[in-house]
Amino acid sequence: MTDKELRVSKIRDGTVIDHVTAGQALNVLAILGIDGSGGESVSIGMNVPSDKVGYKDVVKVEGRELSQSEVDVLSLIAPEATINIIRDFEVAEKNRVEQTDTVRGILVCPNHNCITNADEPVRTEFEVLGDGVRCAYCDTIIREGDVAEHIDARGSGETAL
Amino acid sequence: MTDKELRVSKIRDGTVIDHVTAGQALNVLAILGIDGSGGESVSIGMNVPSDKVGYKDVVKVEGRELSQSEVDVLSLIAPEATINIIRDFEVAEKNRVEQTDTVRGILVCPNHNCITNADEPVRTEFEVLGDGVRCAYCDTIIREGDVAEHIDARGSGETAL
Repeated sequence: MTDKELRVSKIRDGTVIDHVTAGQALNVLAILGIDGSGGESVSIGMNVPSDKVGYKDVVKVEGRELSQSEVDVLSLIAPEATINIIRDFEVAEKNRVEQTDTVRGILVCPNHNCITNADEPVRTEFEVLGDGVRCAYCDTIIREGDVAEHIDARGSGETAL
Repeated sequence: MTDKELRVSKIRDGTVIDHVTAGQALNVLAILGIDGSGGESVSIGMNVPSDKVGYKDVVKVEGRELSQSEVDVLSLIAPEATINIIRDFEVAEKNRVEQTDTVRGILVCPNHNCITNADEPVRTEFEVLGDGVRCAYCDTIIREGDVAEHIDARGSGETAL
């Protein structure tokens, strides 16, 4: 693919999240806690034609190298994503997102009576199942296809293995 | 500026919203009702260096020509935005967003007791003031700097002059 065909241009230093499930780029940003207000230079391509997967999304974050624990949360919504750490325009590291066991502080429990929704200083925690996640406090299950709707847009979190 | 320096590449047909206030690109998408789920090909650059304004955001929507009434709502959050309609890689029309008098169905009233929040079939309507907007039903005012927080992420709306 030539530079001219790229929807979003190359970056000098930072992280490229490629092969994101088409239509999920804005959820990737929400999970990473990026909304533009922090001044980060970010480029996004949504529903970009891809040889490998038909259509895909791409997210490029300049000047920030995402850690493995940061990107692993993306396995919830973009399990096929590839993570390239870029230094001086070259790919310095190439990683894949890995399935996590536990997700803390990223999702909001849909159960309004859950302790995590009660203005208490309790961070949400979900156990990752094969086809969704289960709240560690009230056992409410969020099915895989509904996870994106329950992302806490206000903040980033972390994962634990 | 050469093609190589562009953060987001050229599009064949569609709309380029340029000189968007830095950090407001995601709010532009919310106002236009674009979240990627519709399959539109969209590219975004956030906090891109600009000769004219320091830093800016850019939004490119492929295969869709936005009408003047659609873009005028953007005056609420990106008053300096320029709108280029692109046909076959060339700029066919160049417009600016214009201040609207009334905004219908784009914003959510912050007053929980407002009729527009009461599960009634009443669409929100705000009168545009010099430094904010005022609910046509309960007179609650949203100050200019707070407008972005009250965008209804669920749907698009229209403006009236």
